[in-house]
Parts: sequence; structure tokens; C-alpha cells
Amino acid sequence: MNTTNPFAQGCAFIDGGFVPAGEARIPVLDYGFLRSDATYDVVHVWNGAFFRLEDHLDRFLRNVGRLRMTLPMDRAALRTTAIACIEKSGLREAYVWMICTRGRPAPGSRDPRRCENRLIVMAVPYVPYADDEQRRRGLNVVIAKTVRRIPPESVDPTIKNLHWLDLEMALFEAYDRGAENAVLLDASDHVTEGPGFNVFCVENGVVLTPDRGGLDGITRRTTIELCAELGIPCRVEPIAKDRFLAADEIFFTTSAGGVLPVTRIEGRILGNGAPGPVTARLGERYHAWHREGRHATPVRY
Amino acid sequence: MNTTNPFAQGCAFIDGGFVPAGEARIPVLDYGFLRSDATYDVVHVWNGAFFRLEDHLDRFLRNVGRLRMTLPMDRAALRTTAIACIEKSGLREAYVWMICTRGRPAPGSRDPRRCENRLIVMAVPYVPYADDEQRRRGLNVVIAKTVRRIPPESVDPTIKNLHWLDLEMALFEAYDRGAENAVLLDASDHVTEGPGFNVFCVENGVVLTPDRGGLDGITRRTTIELCAELGIPCRVEPIAKDRFLAADEIFFTTSAGGVLPVTRIEGRILGNGAPGPVTARLGERYHAWHREGRHATPVRY
Repeated sequence: MNTTNPFAQGCAFIDGGFVPAGEARIPVLDYGFLRSDATYDVVHVWNGAFFRLEDHLDRFLRNVGRLRMTLPMDRAALRTTAIACIEKSGLREAYVWMICTRGRPAPGSRDPRRCENRLIVMAVPYVPYADDEQRRRGLNVVIAKTVRRIPPESVDPTIKNLHWLDLEMALFEAYDRGAENAVLLDASDHVTEGPGFNVFCVENGVVLTPDRGGLDGITRRTTIELCAELGIPCRVEPIAKDRFLAADEIFFTTSAGGVLPVTRIEGRILGNGAPGPVTARLGERYHAWHREGRHATPVRY
Repeated sequence: MNTTNPFAQGCAFIDGGFVPAGEARIPVLDYGFLRSDATYDVVHVWNGAFFRLEDHLDRFLRNVGRLRMTLPMDRAALRTTAIACIEKSGLREAYVWMICTRGRPAPGSRDPRRCENRLIVMAVPYVPYADDEQRRRGLNVVIAKTVRRIPPESVDPTIKNLHWLDLEMALFEAYDRGAENAVLLDASDHVTEGPGFNVFCVENGVVLTPDRGGLDGITRRTTIELCAELGIPCRVEPIAKDRFLAADEIFFTTSAGGVLPVTRIEGRILGNGAPGPVTARLGERYHAWHREGRHATPVRY
């Protein structure tokens, strides 16, 4: 990597030009900030290749439409811009954010229909969700007691959005309780998701993930496909808190690291404190898909 | 007003300096944007004087603490900065925003505890929530059917926050249904608030406003005090949707215009389409308090 490259710590496309990611700024008056009126997606780049870029583009474009916003460019140009951010940065392990904000209302107006929507595309260095030690021993997490996930009736979690205060407050609670992360429940005590990840558990050899209350994560989808490939039964259905806590294994999925084992929850130790066998198999196959170039869009640096 | 003043369309204090409000930008990487991890307050300036500035400072400082954030200045300096934004702008009718964002995490970190919190103070021209015609004939509103207000169990609405997607989607629904605005219900069909306003109704001469599910608005508080002054009974209690729809009068309260009458809801006409007598009395006294200089902090331009 060329260390004199101004984009070495990330590259953002905003308002028609490329700037170092750290210098990318949006107007305070943009409703994407003042009203968190925005949708986004994050695709990861591993070993110089995007993973499931087209799936992320599908989801992002669908969600832009669901929020009644319009991008200033078409899908092909968006793809080219995402790749250009990586090319300019030279990053081989990275995240590419795509964010569409409502924009700034016309002077004297509060009407969101009259805003010109803003697109931001931004490549930033990969920061693993869990470090090597956490991956080896598994995460220590809690079920948040002080906050519930924002319900789909208020903000649809499948429209990937920046409404994270509940997730942030759950993180603070986890830290207070000596844990590393938190899973949030819905109003009926079913597990939903956590800050930046979907949740799974394994019960009598069956992999389970909630059917609602969280994002339809791309890594969640990959995990369901990995189960099919490996012949592991997988069901998408409601998971009550007590059932989740009694599971044989628990793991999280995120584009920021794939399959992340959990070995302590609410102080209870799972699998003698080592990642469970199903979690380990899925994690290995997840990395194998990357090594094998599945769903890869290589970048020409 | 000096039209060559670069701050004539607003003045913002951000990252230690003053810039025209339209040029104020925050880093895309600030969690205040990427996670809507922020709290804010908006105080209005009328005829060259802040209204209830100390009450807004009280609430803002309390909420900054509740989100475990720290301002880069104390209360006295914050007050001085808010006044300076107005002085520099020369605006005599304005809003002053105070926003505290989580800030940007340390490189390689996702830990919100390690962020340096950011303060933005911004004076912008007053944009009335309702125009003269709407004030005269009353607003035409709906009860949102497609979305519920984010519940206090997820994001505490008394910590004034930028989680507005539910409110924004309710606005789109209102427009689709030929109305001007929307009131949101909670999960148990009780009224909460709308985009930027608290709700009230009048039932047999008694003024009612919900006890939970919405912001503890400063204009709401003023209205409760106005009722006391005028000898109008006022109760803060749960209001079911059907009871609200059957009320004699409905009005909204907001710093962006005071007491706003509603004369059509769900297609039903209230009070023969003219603002009700209790609403009108409260609106008149609200303006009288301003004219009389109650709770005023005059600005020396």
C-alpha cells in the first residue's frame, strides 16, 4: 500500500467528488442527520474482492425505494463508484458504506418530499467485530434488560437504518455488567438482534434464527445457505428468551467478521467455554467460501 | 438586517468555530450520524429574545448526561455560544439548535465510550410550523395507520433524539391521504405525539395531554401553565385513540409556532371547521406571554 496515498485510510464519494473518508462531511441541515432519515448498506471487501456485492446492491436499492428516495446515479454507476472507492484507497480488507440520506429541505420548507436526496459511498479500513482472542474463546454477552429493540411497527429493521440508540444503550448496559455485547429482545421477550449482528442458536443439532425483529442480514442469509450446503437443519422462527438461553450453542453473524461464537451469556457458560461444533463448522465454511472466491467481485487495483 | 452578513441565513458553532449554518458539516464517521447517537434541543427566538432558554438548557444538559455524553463547555459557555449564534446572524425570529453527538470512535475501535463527543450550536431562520391560513382554519390531520411511535422501552422520547423515521413515514402517509400532518399511536392505540409536536385535546372543558410516549415538550409545559393561569382544568393522562377522535377540540404544541389548532382529523370536521374556543384562548395567551416578555432572554445585537 502506498502510504503517501491520501485515501489510504479510506475514500469517500460525496457530493460528486472523492475525498479521504476522514474528511467526508455531511451538512448538519441534511434530514439524514437531523431526522436520521436515511438508509444504508455495508459490504465487505476481503483479500481484494467484494463479497456478495450484487446482494448488497439489491438490498440497498430496494430500501432506497421503500423510503421513497431516489439516487443520483443508476445501479451500474453505483457499483462503479463503490469499486472506485476501494481502488483509490488501495485497501484489500475494507467495508464499503453506501448511504442515501433524505437531504436538505427547500428553504422555508419542512417537506421531506422536496428534499434532494444525497448519496455517500465510502470505503474504510476493515475493523474486525471480534478480535482473535474473542473468536477463539467466544464472546461474553448479556440480554439487554434496560432497552428493547425498536419494533418493526415503528421502524422496519429490514430497511437498514441508522436508528441505533437502543443498540448503543444496550452496549453501555453490557459494559456496565462486565460483558462485551448485548442481544435485544422485543416486547414479547423474543430475541431480535444486537448492534450490527443477527443472532442464531443451535438446539439439538438444529440451527435457529429469529424470523422478525431484526435485519435480513446478508451474512445471516449466507449462514442459512451454508447450513443447506452442510446438511445442517436450519429454521427461521420466533425464539423466546428462555429457549435462547437454554440453547446448546449461540452465535452472531455480521459482515464484520462472519460467524462469531458466543460462549458466555448472562454469566452462563456454554459448551465449557469453547465455541460449539456447529458454530465452528459454519465459521470454517464461511471462510472457505471467501477463499474459494464464491460471490466475489475482485477489484483491479 | 445586514444582507452582506455571511451569517444572515444562520450561524453555526461547530468544532470550535463559527460558520454560516448552510456550510456547517459533521463528519460522516461521527456516530451521531452513523448511529443517530445524539441528543438535541431547539429553543426559539421571537422578536429578538430567547423564550425559556434556561428550561431548554436544563433539558439539554440533563439529556446529554442521560446518554453518558460530556459537553466540551459548561452551561454558561453554552448559553453564551447560543446567544453568540443569534447575535452574529442578526436574526430576530429564529431557532437555536443545540446538538451533542457521540463523536467518532478511536481508530480501529467501535467503542462508544472512547468517542470524543461533539457539540453543535446553530441558529437558523424561523420557519413557522403552520402558515397563517393553516392557523386560521386549523390543520387537517390523520392518525397514522402504517406506523407506530417508537416506544419508550426502545428509545426514551423524553431524551430528545433524532430518531425520526417513524415520524417521517407518518408524514408521507398523511400526504398520501390528502392531509397535512399525522398523530402517531403507541402499540396500545393511545395517542403519543407527531413530527415535532405534542398533542392535546379538549373534552367537556378539560384540557388533556398524554402522560407518556412523547417528548416532555417545553411548549407543552407552557400550555399546562397557561391552563393553570386561565383557570382551565388540565390533566396529563393516557388518551385512547377513540377518545381523542371524539374530543371537542384538538391542538398541537411546538416551539415552532406555539398552539396549533386542528379542525379536521380522519376526515371528521371539528367545531364546524374553526379553531375551538379553548384552543384560541390558549393560543392568545401564549402570544401574550411572548409580548409581555415572560421567560424572555433578550439578545443585544
